Amino acid sequence: MPPAVPQTRKEAEEADRLDPLAQYRSYFHLSGGGAIYLDGNSLGRQTTATAGAMREALDQWREQLVGGWDHWAELPKLVGDRIGTLIGATAGQVVVSDSTTVNLYKLGVAALDAQVDRRVIVGDANDFPTVRYVLQGLAARENCRLRLLSAAPSEGLSVDAVSSALDDDVALVCFSAVNYRSGAVMDLREVTEAAHRFGSLVLWDLSHAAGALPLALDEQGADLAVGCGYKYLNGGPGAPAFLYVSSRLHGLLRQPIWGWWGQADQFAMAEDYEPVGGVGQFLTGTPAVLGLVALDAGIGPLMAVGVPSLWEKGRRLVALLAARASARLAPLQATIASPADPDKRGAHLAIAHPHAWAATRLLIDHRLVVPDFRAPNIMRLAPVPIYTQFVEVWDALEHIAAVLDGPAAHFDPPRKGVT
Amino acid sequence: MPPAVPQTRKEAEEADRLDPLAQYRSYFHLSGGGAIYLDGNSLGRQTTATAGAMREALDQWREQLVGGWDHWAELPKLVGDRIGTLIGATAGQVVVSDSTTVNLYKLGVAALDAQVDRRVIVGDANDFPTVRYVLQGLAARENCRLRLLSAAPSEGLSVDAVSSALDDDVALVCFSAVNYRSGAVMDLREVTEAAHRFGSLVLWDLSHAAGALPLALDEQGADLAVGCGYKYLNGGPGAPAFLYVSSRLHGLLRQPIWGWWGQADQFAMAEDYEPVGGVGQFLTGTPAVLGLVALDAGIGPLMAVGVPSLWEKGRRLVALLAARASARLAPLQATIASPADPDKRGAHLAIAHPHAWAATRLLIDHRLVVPDFRAPNIMRLAPVPIYTQFVEVWDALEHIAAVLDGPAAHFDPPRKGVT
Repeated sequence: MPPAVPQTRKEAEEADRLDPLAQYRSYFHLSGGGAIYLDGNSLGRQTTATAGAMREALDQWREQLVGGWDHWAELPKLVGDRIGTLIGATAGQVVVSDSTTVNLYKLGVAALDAQVDRRVIVGDANDFPTVRYVLQGLAARENCRLRLLSAAPSEGLSVDAVSSALDDDVALVCFSAVNYRSGAVMDLREVTEAAHRFGSLVLWDLSHAAGALPLALDEQGADLAVGCGYKYLNGGPGAPAFLYVSSRLHGLLRQPIWGWWGQADQFAMAEDYEPVGGVGQFLTGTPAVLGLVALDAGIGPLMAVGVPSLWEKGRRLVALLAARASARLAPLQATIASPADPDKRGAHLAIAHPHAWAATRLLIDHRLVVPDFRAPNIMRLAPVPIYTQFVEVWDALEHIAAVLDGPAAHFDPPRKGVT
Repeated sequence: MPPAVPQTRKEAEEADRLDPLAQYRSYFHLSGGGAIYLDGNSLGRQTTATAGAMREALDQWREQLVGGWDHWAELPKLVGDRIGTLIGATAGQVVVSDSTTVNLYKLGVAALDAQVDRRVIVGDANDFPTVRYVLQGLAARENCRLRLLSAAPSEGLSVDAVSSALDDDVALVCFSAVNYRSGAVMDLREVTEAAHRFGSLVLWDLSHAAGALPLALDEQGADLAVGCGYKYLNGGPGAPAFLYVSSRLHGLLRQPIWGWWGQADQFAMAEDYEPVGGVGQFLTGTPAVLGLVALDAGIGPLMAVGVPSLWEKGRRLVALLAARASARLAPLQATIASPADPDKRGAHLAIAHPHAWAATRLLIDHRLVVPDFRAPNIMRLAPVPIYTQFVEVWDALEHIAAVLDGPAAHFDPPRKGVT
């Protein structure tokens, strides 16, 4: 039986004392103005190894100059394989490359080009903007119809809902494994199986899942996936993204951006583009070495812990968050806009409140808590297993309650910048 | 009358003593194993400000966490405008984004989509692989014909050669301003004018020009351009690239990768993609902050000097290089595979020799000189105005002569890695 959710602040402290992951907090810089940081799924904290790794990369550039490429050239695959261990992908199927947006585009076009007789894309109307926008762009340019499905705001799309949108015209199904607002999870295996029954390919955005939730892409029969390097993977602002292409599909798909880093025998600089074998064919231009080095440092602690242990703690953190939100925020007009079933939600929770924006600003300005605000009325709270404490969750909810219970209603700050 | 080219090593030393740019050498780390570095057009040296700028960016991430985006969000345009001053583009037309490869693709598709009744792309058969490959990919996917023009290896394409390949079917003309091998320059203004007479758009790759040669994109009537951040701009391995879109074309072109960083009112996260006004619409995913910060540090010294002064010295360095190559290497079977006319070549020179590969390896392994090798028989030499000395050019040619005069012919090293 899993450990119970703390019922008192003292029990939260006790849970931290007994937390087998507690030692890993010291792998991260815990500074940031003293506020309780519940926005690691927007930008993960910096590991204590990152600055040293960056210094080393700068030393290599300074001293080895162009000769540094002898080892930098391997980084996209090396770091890709390491991320693979966090998402259940065996070696040779993941590379670090470009941004999530560009990778969605590349794999989306590749999937459509492989099935020219199918002209429907299925997506989620409540997905993260860049996913929806990339799909809209693909639909517009590639002469496809876009079927956007919609579930209740606090729920993810059910397998039934997805199945009923599928038919033999569907080339590509594209969803986020964990919704960026509600945290609702989708069933990778069942959605993939449903899509495969119609012969469609599935592209997953793992941005809010990788490094937090257990994923088993190979075993779940996944086709394609992308994900962000700067959330739970702690790669730093604008870290390069990753992409996964199942080895089943290597050689069957072709991405549209033909660059010299995806070329066979790259430095022969041959006349005609001929994609290299394996997942390397999904690389494009020269890889971002500094970003790759920071990303590699960012995933180090996660690999040391392992995703099962991360998620064991993550579930308890979210359960505590949900319990405290019910106890302290529900009486203040707040509702939990995330699935109630612990099996159907990821590592963060959405709290809906009419004064969510004002409360978020006050909490940040007074250095109490850093939540994330999502228009129009969502405060998003993400306790990150590897560095968030139970007592931080407890205290954060007390601060949020104090701010919602009065000040937020009387404060109407201008909406600007990235929160 | 410009200062004469040094005729003796003593005169080369004297030229360095009188060099008004000499003080700027101290803006760069000049380490690298003691070899004379003539490969700054593959990977530029690191400025002495870079490490501090990176530390500051890491401090911001650590302390400000997600709040850092309040200023990081401006970096793509801010650094873009600074690069604009080096290429003759007024503010609001350049952004730093993605890689050169991805930017070529984005602008290439945008140009083709704006002219659906034209289905020909004109390019250079001797252009850098990624340029040729992107154009091949565009031709294949967008149902276009690719006309690849070819000049003699040591010469650039003439305006006449380009003009004779143009007609009313040409949507896109895409060339490098300076050829990556021969250093041959093309006439931006005349090629652009010739293309415009047929109503075609021109896309320039400035990778081997930006930060070295004078460019005046606005004044020369340029449409579109991209360029690399890690060569003369000193942004570090895999630095993010830049793109230029003339303000004449904003709103008329639409790039294919619809991401949240190109969206109007980005954080409203609206349902439908609507590109933001101005050059920002050519952004895609979350910008690479660490790469942007290093790139900004890399261009600092160039902005302090100004391109006219850089090129005044650059021309003399290349002239010295050519003179010494004629004097010392021509008797050893080497030929200069670059334009003889100083007005028709950029900041580097290509030396053809049957043992170029062996000589390159020997020079690097013995820490004498770092040239660049380009298959099958080219040794590429780039004296970089802001940090290369005249005496370094003199001495490098002596080392190359010594190696070509014997050792290289008897040495057959394996070809691997990036040289």
